[in-house]
Amino acid sequence: MTAALKVGIAGLGTVGAALIAQVARQREALAARCGRAIEIVAVCARAKGKDRGVDLKKMKWFADPVALARASDIDVFVELIGGAGDPAKSAIEAALASGKSVVTANKALLAKHGVKLAALAEKHHVALNFEAAIGGAIPIVKTLREGLAGNSFERIYGILNGTCNYILTRMEQDKMPFAECLKEAQRLGYAEADPSFDIEGHDTAQKLAILASLAFGTKADQSAIYVEGISSIAPADLLAAEELGYRVKLLGVAVKTDKGIEQRVHPTMVRKDSAIAQVMGVTNAVTVDAAGINPLTLIGPGAGGAATASAVLSDIGDIARGVRTSPFGRPIARLKSVRKAPMQRHEGGYYIRLLARDKPGTAATIATRLAEQEISLESIVQRHPVHVDTDAKAGSVPVILITYATTEDAVRKALAAVGRDRVISGTPQVIRIEKN
Amino acid sequence: MTAALKVGIAGLGTVGAALIAQVARQREALAARCGRAIEIVAVCARAKGKDRGVDLKKMKWFADPVALARASDIDVFVELIGGAGDPAKSAIEAALASGKSVVTANKALLAKHGVKLAALAEKHHVALNFEAAIGGAIPIVKTLREGLAGNSFERIYGILNGTCNYILTRMEQDKMPFAECLKEAQRLGYAEADPSFDIEGHDTAQKLAILASLAFGTKADQSAIYVEGISSIAPADLLAAEELGYRVKLLGVAVKTDKGIEQRVHPTMVRKDSAIAQVMGVTNAVTVDAAGINPLTLIGPGAGGAATASAVLSDIGDIARGVRTSPFGRPIARLKSVRKAPMQRHEGGYYIRLLARDKPGTAATIATRLAEQEISLESIVQRHPVHVDTDAKAGSVPVILITYATTEDAVRKALAAVGRDRVISGTPQVIRIEKN
Repeated sequence: MTAALKVGIAGLGTVGAALIAQVARQREALAARCGRAIEIVAVCARAKGKDRGVDLKKMKWFADPVALARASDIDVFVELIGGAGDPAKSAIEAALASGKSVVTANKALLAKHGVKLAALAEKHHVALNFEAAIGGAIPIVKTLREGLAGNSFERIYGILNGTCNYILTRMEQDKMPFAECLKEAQRLGYAEADPSFDIEGHDTAQKLAILASLAFGTKADQSAIYVEGISSIAPADLLAAEELGYRVKLLGVAVKTDKGIEQRVHPTMVRKDSAIAQVMGVTNAVTVDAAGINPLTLIGPGAGGAATASAVLSDIGDIARGVRTSPFGRPIARLKSVRKAPMQRHEGGYYIRLLARDKPGTAATIATRLAEQEISLESIVQRHPVHVDTDAKAGSVPVILITYATTEDAVRKALAAVGRDRVISGTPQVIRIEKN
Repeated sequence: MTAALKVGIAGLGTVGAALIAQVARQREALAARCGRAIEIVAVCARAKGKDRGVDLKKMKWFADPVALARASDIDVFVELIGGAGDPAKSAIEAALASGKSVVTANKALLAKHGVKLAALAEKHHVALNFEAAIGGAIPIVKTLREGLAGNSFERIYGILNGTCNYILTRMEQDKMPFAECLKEAQRLGYAEADPSFDIEGHDTAQKLAILASLAFGTKADQSAIYVEGISSIAPADLLAAEELGYRVKLLGVAVKTDKGIEQRVHPTMVRKDSAIAQVMGVTNAVTVDAAGINPLTLIGPGAGGAATASAVLSDIGDIARGVRTSPFGRPIARLKSVRKAPMQRHEGGYYIRLLARDKPGTAATIATRLAEQEISLESIVQRHPVHVDTDAKAGSVPVILITYATTEDAVRKALAAVGRDRVISGTPQVIRIEKN
């Protein structure tokens, strides 16, 4: 049997502690499955004395992650510090430059500096694995890099942020407004004190940038993604979606179009009977469309110490077995830059919720403005105000429109004209429909 | 760049032709993703002249699969002949013995001779890959072998046969009886002329034997599996399931118990809001329960030329990259024999549908017999006969019972006693409930 693989871990939060516990518990099975033992020989964290519920006695302690990354005692450097900058970045660079393979769960860093780090890994012929950066325990990175290596992708989309999915689930199931669900999520520890990174879609965008790179060979670039969060979603939207056969999910979507790879994060209507629509609470899911295999959907826990540690350990196991895959599935030289999707040109169906003035001619005006933009309607529902809407004002009627495929530009122009006609109150709600 | 990987394919049916087309279409992407070109250099099939819609001109033709398997021209032998015996078996043995890696989609052969073939692969240090044998394009073999290499499994279960799931879906959605749905499935090409292999659960059992081996380190052994098909399921069962919050699926289940690994295939009640319950039509799905990551569910196309070819190509890609994983995830010496699960000792909830004689004392008699076996009821529904049941006879009332966890033995004993009491007509329907 080959010598043990010596691992150093920087960052001993929930994931680091879960990883140490799992390696100890699975010692023998891991050796059998990987052909060699896996040993955590060194660790690094801020507070040395802290009780993390795991035995660190046999591990060498480092105060500086960069020093650990360079240490000759280790074969693999596991970065669980987090954050898009130093010390995570400099430590990973130090590890790669000294010929060590790296495993990281750091989506922020990969979305920002992934290409550079992958180039460094390629130069030094070492692995840079990051299964844990997206979808927790869901083996989506391996599936895209290896499992579907012979496929040409058409689209990839997913529920990549548990906080948002938890909030949308609660809003739908208990007819609670957004703000109240957010507060509850914060109380339960599903949302941060400053929740904007999650609820405004930025966390999803970082993960999407990485997924798109793996699927389409783009250079991971968060700034090329159109991003819209969930704070504008009202219980009335979820109720209308339900009645029309849809659910609202915050999706990250990357899709091949005539104009290139379109990457976007926004609340999305998905068919209620699709696998992804069934994903409730903090669970994550990714759906892949490729010729002959669409859709393929992977569903699982997207966060948590054990789930993330499981993905990190899978990456370590691959290194132990000697597997070296290009970090983004292809040599760096083949990755292509990607421009930000011009959303005006986005094509698809739309859900529109308006508060129409209850007077003669309103319906005709709205219908005319849509027709001027050549927008066809799949359905139109006008509700008695009592029935649904907290936004309803005296003399106003909620109207819900579902359009056939059109362009975002046409929708925006039609709604601007309707606004100028003064037949609606407030701002129309617009949610894109993802065909699935 | 390393020299091209030279591939020989035996069997040119739908999958073989789809594979040749996909390799041609993805030539450049495959080379980039695998670090070397993949070339199909030789093929073997029965009819040389047949038009398969793909260009075979540059490929060497073999009439004998064993000769192709031994040919010095190839690095990898792809077996798409099928069947548990020769020529598939002897050809794979010849390839492995001559130091060639093998890719196969042959579940029947693996369920019967997988351990021997894996031992041969191990001896010659070559790969024996079979992603396509289970769940078509779903990357479940890779997920179990590599993605979850560091996890300890508790249970794995799946919808592994598209024919059965199609029939159950039609029965549920259109309230059609089994025989009619089967005929339709045959007309659509989803079921064979002799459908018993699929509908009696044997196809599912072969796949389950392989999954259990990957998850639990058992020696794949179809004869160790309890098997029950779907032909006894009536529309009344699907309707009752729906009302009680369940769906009926034919599942293959392997679960760790105090008494060892229990492997079984049977119609199963699953909670309607679980991911696996949403899987309709010919789609397949596998759910994995392991500490910290339960459940993880993979859903996708389980059959078809393109879906199967995609899985075969993923296996070839791994060989091109130099990945060699133990066929069943562990060295052969560590695989353990497994005994057939004694189903009398199976523990779980049960759905029972009885046709009770409509006379005083019947309910009391049934309740007493269940109580004698210490079976507690979660729910009991007695229906007016008009309402539901085609089996209903004059003077009989359908009664549906859902039990809390009990043993199969207790259920069988209670029902035998009820039968002796002459308070029911016909044979009770019994469907196991899988907690999920």
